[in-house]
Amino acid sequence: MDERLKKQIDFILEIDKEKNIFRQTSLSGHGRKENDAEHAWHMAIAAFLLQEYSNEPVDILRVILMCLIHDVVEIDAGDTYAYDTEGLKTQKAREDAAKERIYSLLPEDQKQKLIEIFDEFEENQTKEAKFAHAMDNLQPLLLNNSNNGSDWKEHEVTATQIYKRQTKTKDGSVKLFELTDRLIKENIDKGNIKY
Amino acid sequence: MDERLKKQIDFILEIDKEKNIFRQTSLSGHGRKENDAEHAWHMAIAAFLLQEYSNEPVDILRVILMCLIHDVVEIDAGDTYAYDTEGLKTQKAREDAAKERIYSLLPEDQKQKLIEIFDEFEENQTKEAKFAHAMDNLQPLLLNNSNNGSDWKEHEVTATQIYKRQTKTKDGSVKLFELTDRLIKENIDKGNIKY
Repeated sequence: MDERLKKQIDFILEIDKEKNIFRQTSLSGHGRKENDAEHAWHMAIAAFLLQEYSNEPVDILRVILMCLIHDVVEIDAGDTYAYDTEGLKTQKAREDAAKERIYSLLPEDQKQKLIEIFDEFEENQTKEAKFAHAMDNLQPLLLNNSNNGSDWKEHEVTATQIYKRQTKTKDGSVKLFELTDRLIKENIDKGNIKY
Repeated sequence: MDERLKKQIDFILEIDKEKNIFRQTSLSGHGRKENDAEHAWHMAIAAFLLQEYSNEPVDILRVILMCLIHDVVEIDAGDTYAYDTEGLKTQKAREDAAKERIYSLLPEDQKQKLIEIFDEFEENQTKEAKFAHAMDNLQPLLLNNSNNGSDWKEHEVTATQIYKRQTKTKDGSVKLFELTDRLIKENIDKGNIKY
């Protein structure tokens, strides 16, 4: 096998490990916890179907690629729960080291390409990154809402914490933030979210 | 919530169930069986990284969409193992019924769009469909090879059966079929595949 193809195959095998990184979100139907690979797949399809609600027209291929690869770093860095204050302090350093190790398995041009896409997502400045972040927020919210807020209850998350995170959805999609806001309010009313 | 958005959200929640459809392929590192959502995610990234080996240049967004949605029908129809002779006889009828039910959750225009992409994949005539099929074959082969052929051994699959399926990879990528062929021969030599 030539060197280039070997590197590509090595990377493809390495990211298989993302299927073992579990998140704090439960699958619908009060299922088990979701893993990063499933989450990425779900976000990518949601992005394709909901792109009409982006505040600005987006390059949907780029959004989908961000959705697919944004959690690869968690193979080394682990999942940091959105409401884990201590974990969030070290998250960037852990993910930077992971980014370098894992993407370096690829041929140099593809390493650069995927890091560029990953960094664009993380910096959250472009319309594509903002819409991908809206998906990253909306997807677990939909699952959690379908489970009567079980993940929020388990972690005793407060409305302030949720709004701090979910308000960013507005930067990607005002329309989808309206939905988000309504779902949060319903869950506060039901006592699923502490106020 | 308006009717269109409601339908889109209903579909997005429905396909969460794909995470509970397990395949016959084991994750690398002799892990548990893989589910359809993880498989689709893995194929989509592999397609992006390996597109240079397609026999013809492809619309990579279309290939990725095929990878992401091609197994949604298995929510109702279940996974049919590639070497399950009995299951394969009824597979098309089961999947057609599932396709109609599940995609009908979407607004009509998106239902048509996703069925068009799904049918294109199934008919396997376009260069995009052929390359997506190459990914559908290569991804489990890489995992299985990394596990010293444990899935082939478990199901006592023969070289003839494997070649019948894997030869189709050639229609999408001669280069990736060369890799496939080499890996199959190595596994025959090791006694992992019955000859």
